[in-house]
Parts: sequence; C-alpha cells; structure tokens
Amino acid sequence: MNVSDSQRNFRNHRVVLAERPRALPGVEHFRFDDQPVSEPGDGEVLLETVYVSVDPAMRVWMNEDPGYVPPIALGDVMRAGGIGRVVESRSARFPVGALVQARLGWQTHPTLSEAQLTPIDLALGGPLEWMGPLGGTGLTAYFGMYRVGAVKSDDRVLVSAASGGVGQVASQIARLEGCRSVGIAGGEAKCQHLTGSLGLSGAVDYKSVPDIGAAIDDLLPDGIDLYFDNVGGPILDAVLERLRPRGRVVICGRISQTGSESLYGVKNLGALIGKRARVEGFIVSDYAAEFDTAREWLSARIKAGELSQRLHVLEGLESAPKGLGMLFDGENTGKLVVQLASA
Amino acid sequence: MNVSDSQRNFRNHRVVLAERPRALPGVEHFRFDDQPVSEPGDGEVLLETVYVSVDPAMRVWMNEDPGYVPPIALGDVMRAGGIGRVVESRSARFPVGALVQARLGWQTHPTLSEAQLTPIDLALGGPLEWMGPLGGTGLTAYFGMYRVGAVKSDDRVLVSAASGGVGQVASQIARLEGCRSVGIAGGEAKCQHLTGSLGLSGAVDYKSVPDIGAAIDDLLPDGIDLYFDNVGGPILDAVLERLRPRGRVVICGRISQTGSESLYGVKNLGALIGKRARVEGFIVSDYAAEFDTAREWLSARIKAGELSQRLHVLEGLESAPKGLGMLFDGENTGKLVVQLASA
Repeated sequence: MNVSDSQRNFRNHRVVLAERPRALPGVEHFRFDDQPVSEPGDGEVLLETVYVSVDPAMRVWMNEDPGYVPPIALGDVMRAGGIGRVVESRSARFPVGALVQARLGWQTHPTLSEAQLTPIDLALGGPLEWMGPLGGTGLTAYFGMYRVGAVKSDDRVLVSAASGGVGQVASQIARLEGCRSVGIAGGEAKCQHLTGSLGLSGAVDYKSVPDIGAAIDDLLPDGIDLYFDNVGGPILDAVLERLRPRGRVVICGRISQTGSESLYGVKNLGALIGKRARVEGFIVSDYAAEFDTAREWLSARIKAGELSQRLHVLEGLESAPKGLGMLFDGENTGKLVVQLASA
Repeated sequence: MNVSDSQRNFRNHRVVLAERPRALPGVEHFRFDDQPVSEPGDGEVLLETVYVSVDPAMRVWMNEDPGYVPPIALGDVMRAGGIGRVVESRSARFPVGALVQARLGWQTHPTLSEAQLTPIDLALGGPLEWMGPLGGTGLTAYFGMYRVGAVKSDDRVLVSAASGGVGQVASQIARLEGCRSVGIAGGEAKCQHLTGSLGLSGAVDYKSVPDIGAAIDDLLPDGIDLYFDNVGGPILDAVLERLRPRGRVVICGRISQTGSESLYGVKNLGALIGKRARVEGFIVSDYAAEFDTAREWLSARIKAGELSQRLHVLEGLESAPKGLGMLFDGENTGKLVVQLASA
C-alpha cells in the first residue's frame, strides 16, 4: 500500500529533547513539533502510537553520556517504549491493524522496520498489561529478582520505591516465592496499597517515619537477605547495616539521587565483608533472549489473580514531559503510561 | 608425658587486650602478663610459639562486636594465627617436636587441643611460607581472586594495598592468569617491588600521584574488570567510575577507613547499574574445606619461582602491638610476622 503524504490527514507530532537537564527533568527540557510522517520503505510500517511509557531511566538517557545506551541527540525525538497499531504496512509480518510493542519514542506516528517490532500476543494480556507488568517494568522486576537477586523462599525481602512500576512487581514476586516481603513507599495511601491489594507483609512510609532503620527493624527484625533497590541514598546505608549473611543488594535504580546537588556517599559498604554480601547492578535488556519465558510466567500469575500492577495513565502526548517530572516528585500512583490513541 | 609446673623453666607470656580502640590500634590497648602454662589434658599439646601473625583484620576483632567472629574479651589473650612447635604432648597425632599451624594468640606457650591444630606439611613450604603465602594472606588472596572475583585471563586487574600480605599474592595471581595486573601502594620502594620482583604490569604510588583516577587511566586506559580492594575510601570511588562491563569489585578490607574520624561515603555505586557490575565481600574461613587444594596450588607456584611474598619479620612478642600499629601507617614492607623462637 502506498499513500502519499498529501493524502494523509495526520502528521507526526513529536516531543524532542531541547536541552539536557542538570538535575531534575521537566517540561523546559523538551520541545513539541510536528512533521510529515516518514514514508515506510520495504519491510517497514507506519504506526499510530497507542501508549508510550514514562520511566525514571529516561532521565539517564537524557544525559550527554548515558553510559550503557547511546545518547539522545538534541532535537531528536525522546526515546521511549510503547505500543502502536500498524496503520500502513510494507511488511508481510505486521499487517495493518496489528498491535506491536517497540521503542516508539514520544511521537504519534513513528515509522519503524520489522526488526524493531515485537508482536503483541493478546493471549498473554491486553495492551495496558503489555505496557505494565508484561513490559519493561515487569521484566526488570522479574530478572532483577530471579537472576540478579537469586530470590529464595526463605528470604527476608525489602523493596524500595515499592509502589513504582518495577517495585510493585518485584515485591509481589517476593511474596509469591513465599518470602517475607516489605516495601518502602512515600505516603500512607501508597503503603496501604502495598499491604492491601499487593498483599505484602509490611510497608514503611519513608516520608513519615522518624528513623528508617528502626522502621525496617520493626518489620524485618532478623535483617534483610535481599534488598531490591530503586532509590539509592541513605536508605541503602541503613540496609547495608541490616544485611543478613550472604545478603544481596540488587541495584535497579537510584531515583533519590537524581537531581541532588551532590551525590549521597554510602558509608556502610564495609558490612559486605563480614556478611559475605554483594551489591550488583543490571540492565534488563541483557536478558532479551528470555523475555518470552518471563512474560509467560508473569502472564500466568496475572491471570491467576496473584500479581497485579497499578498503572497511572495520563492522556495525550503533551502530558509526557510533565509525567516524567512527576516520577521524581513521587506524584505518580503507579507505573506511568501516556495514552495517545484508543487501544 | 607429665610435667609439673614446678619442673618447667618457662611461663606463658601473653599480650592481652586491655582496652578497645576507638580508632587506630596501638600499644596502649594491650597489656603484657605471664602465667603458669595451662596443663595439657588428654588430646592436648603444649606449644612453643615460633611465629605469630599481625594482620589488619585484627583491628576488627578488637571491637566489642566484630560481627563475623566472637569478640575478644578484655583481659583475654589477643587472637592471632601462628606456628608453634609441640613441647609437651598428650596427643598421638602431634608428637613433641611437630610443627603446627593454629590460632595460637599472641602468647609464648599456648595449650591447644588436636582439633585446633593444622599439621604443617614441610613438603609444601617452610614455616615462614606457612606464615605467608601458604597462610591466611595467601589463602585470602586465592579465594578472593578465584571464587569471589572469578578472575579470567583477559581481565584488567587492579589491586589496592598491593604490597601488603594479601595484595602481593592477589596481584601475582592476576599476573599468573595472564591478566594485565596493576597494584596500588604507598611510596616508590613499594611500587618498585611490585613492578620488579613481583612482575606486575604497573604500579600506582597513591602517596605521590596528584590524581589517583588519572594515574589508573594511564596504566589501565580501557578500564578495570576486577578490583581487589583492601583499602576502601576514595580509591574505590575512582575505580567504580572506571569499571568495565560486568566488572567485579572484591571487598577484602578497607584499611583506609580504620581510625577515620568519619567513614568515607562512596558516591559512585550508580555506575554498577550501567556496567552490570558487582561489589562483593567475603571471609576466607568460609573456604576452609578447600584450603589444602589452594595450598597445593600456591606451593607449586612458589617452588616454580612464579609467586613470592615479601615478609616483614619483627622479633619478640613485645613487638606485636607496635607491629599492628605499623600496618595502619603503611610502615610495614610486607606481610607482617613476629618471631618468638627459632624455627
């Protein structure tokens, strides 16, 4: 099918990186524009974006040297995962109407090649589940807990930012494995969600407790075998002192350190010696070859009603930059997603 | 054989813990005394101490709560490994004249049971080698490099306190595995020992370089796969920034942090994420079941002239407390040992 640009009644609306933030990201670092869509070539499709993701890792991607991924050039569309529907196709594998997952970017009508697309298997879950627990946050939690953290059934598990996208799934995996699972979150409502809907053993409201260490002691008096860390900072220090022998700290993120004037210095690494403990970081894309297996597992738990993830859905492409800022204020109430078109 | 105390012409001279240090350990934290020897019972031997060890870990043992080992009570003999000769025996396995390795403590004539003794196999090495590369420091280096650090032949390896007891062996293991092996030490003489006798690829004199990071860059321009850390502190931060993908930091000690007014805060743990890297602590005694295998390996390398360890031998029990202080000033020129009797 060939459609000339003049025949299309839409243009590709984009959010492009205008300026690199020094500290917290905000609307001022982005610019909106629109362009003619890029004509799909052989093996390519034109997509209508249905959902795009907003994740803390994006702040790192905005740096001049993110380290583990190429930088986003100034003026380029903001990198983001999402779900789109094929509206024009020059691919036999992805016909018009097909739903796909891909790195769409914050734009309404990306043109991508077959190799960049993951078909969405609706038997595993609907589009919002693919944006959430079957998407990057669910997979990150899965590989972080099982591969890096090597979770075992008798572990005492602590998860920070437990009401965030990754944290919700990580803390529930601990619960599903039979662990004592405690989450840290900011505010009473988030903590109630953790101990209520998510069924965790306990929750610590870091915004209200006078002493985070004492609050952890109350809920995990015998210490911590596995800490799934999304925040870094002083909570990590409190945890290091409370590790059990052979304790494991999975460093998934360090959102507390984003935008800080100066980085927090972690003082208690010496505890790793006597505890024979380890601190380890990871990147979920390293496990791409096993994503299908993980999605099968996650999907089965979701269908059984044993696993859920609360999402926070914003409407319209223009809400994406503001949404990114919300993550760093803790204003989001779950995994943040922007909806651009009806699913 | 039974010998009454009145027939013996010696008493057990001891160094006992008099006071727990807050910062650096020194002679003021110990007291000397002497007592009648403890009569060996059935299955026990009376030993004449030949050598005792002086190691940085002893500072931790002096704490009220060392964490991974029981505390030393005030008034008790200072805990220390060493080598002794059996002078009275009620054990068929350990006759008079036998040399044994044991946790003798800083005392001239301990009485110990068979179960506390390791026979010294002189085919593997002489008594001083058993105090050095075949003793705790060599074993610590061996298991730290192979088991915790998982050293591989193409690793770029950096070792701190590389002229210390553990560091000398760890950095040579890296060299033996074919790695580029760089050591950090204080002072030109120690650095010359590393690149000369020990055959390392390079050495950084942390006392003279203006910027430790730049000095590491000069010698390991492609970064660090494996950091064997005996010191902690700001050097660890410089290394974290320079880790290669899947980099490993083995935390063996943190001598730079002993006696500091306040602990140094490590800021660059975030690098672990993008690098998929890990920081891990360990305790050599966890590998006791494999000590014989490790000693065979170490002994073969020593005999082949491929591995050596410079020792720093002090004379007389009274020099032990002063020796412990020397470790924290970097005054020792190798693995520190105190000789009490002729071997």
